Order: sequence, then structure tokens, then C-alpha cells
Amino acid sequence: MNGDAFDPDCPTRLILDRIGDKWSVLVVLSLRDGPRRFTELRDAIGGVTPKVLTQTLRAMARDGLLTRHVFAEVPPRVEYELTPLGQSLHAPIQAVADWAEHHVNEVMAARQSATG
Amino acid sequence: MNGDAFDPDCPTRLILDRIGDKWSVLVVLSLRDGPRRFTELRDAIGGVTPKVLTQTLRAMARDGLLTRHVFAEVPPRVEYELTPLGQSLHAPIQAVADWAEHHVNEVMAARQSATG
Repeated sequence: MNGDAFDPDCPTRLILDRIGDKWSVLVVLSLRDGPRRFTELRDAIGGVTPKVLTQTLRAMARDGLLTRHVFAEVPPRVEYELTPLGQSLHAPIQAVADWAEHHVNEVMAARQSATG
Repeated sequence: MNGDAFDPDCPTRLILDRIGDKWSVLVVLSLRDGPRRFTELRDAIGGVTPKVLTQTLRAMARDGLLTRHVFAEVPPRVEYELTPLGQSLHAPIQAVADWAEHHVNEVMAARQSATG
């Protein structure tokens, strides 16, 4: 059965909160081409703090969007990888991010004329 | 020039915050077929408070996504309508909402097994 985003009692709402979060968006985009380590993600996603990135990755793992692999090395290597469910989210997320990148100037011009 | 969502100094980030907000998502979807009044939007978007809906509509108007039309009637009629910019956001937003509605069961099952 499908959810209904307009129904306040449907958990679709909770999922919109998760996948609408900008850090989740950037993690999905960053993991498109395969697994990455925490430090690689942190470096790719400018401005994210380690604490927020950790919280985002943990929430996304809990939601079944990515998996965490620990390799028995010294020091231990930890990699994050999208699950098939997380991969399926890539196309819609990419469409939203593309829209934001393509229309940033129009939105900022509207903001300026609204407040100017 | 396009924005870069990975650059913390690029306003694309601010726009991702706006369009990722679940209330903005539901407003865009609600206005797809034409203008609607405040009370129609409030009734369509289950669970939204008048205050939050007002704030959402105001922010979206400031960002150039919708316009507010006041008709000189008694009582005054106010309608909200997507601008062409707001209309262009419909397809990507719909894709994300569709994903959430189609995968709600998988995500909720993952959450339960993670916390169970």
C-alpha cells in the first residue's frame, strides 16, 4: 500500500522530513558512485560538522538508506554505502538539487526584491 | 551561472532548506492545478497549523515561488498561485513525494528492525 503525504497520520510525513533534509540530500549525492569513508564524505560536503554528519549517517542507516561497513584494519576503516533503497532515492533527489542549482539566481533575486 | 550544493557559501544551500521543507512540498503539490484560497490549502494539507501555513506561504512568496492575489470582495478573498518558477519546481518535488509514498513501508520496516 502506498502512503499519502497529505495525511498527517501517515508516516510518509516523517520520511519527507528525512529525505528533505539538505544533509541527507548531499549524502545521497555523495554516495552515488560507490562507498566512501567518513572523512571523504566530510570533505566532500563543505560546511558539515562531524557531529551533524554522524547524526545524518546514523539516521539514514536506521531508515535503511545506507549501510556502514567496518573493516578490521589498524586503524579501523569505516565505509558508508547506499543500499538499493538509498540508490532508488538518488534520481528524485538529484532532480531537486539540480532545480536548486539551476534556479538559485532567480530565487535570490526574488528574495532581494522582496526585502529591498 | 549555476549554483553548487556542495559549496557551503553558495545560496543553493538556503534553497535546499526551503524546498526540502515538507510544508513547502505539500503547498507546491496542492497548487499544481491552479490557485487556491488559504482555507482550501489548510484543509488539503492535513495537520498544518494556520500559523505554519502562513509562514510557509510568506516564505515561498518571498522566494518567488508563488503569488498572493487579494480580490476586493466582502469578505476579502485571497488566493495563492504558483509562479512559473514555482510551477517548474513541481516535477522534482512530485518525484520526491512519490518516492516517499511508494517506499514508506520499506523505510518504516527498516526503522523498526533498527530499534526493535
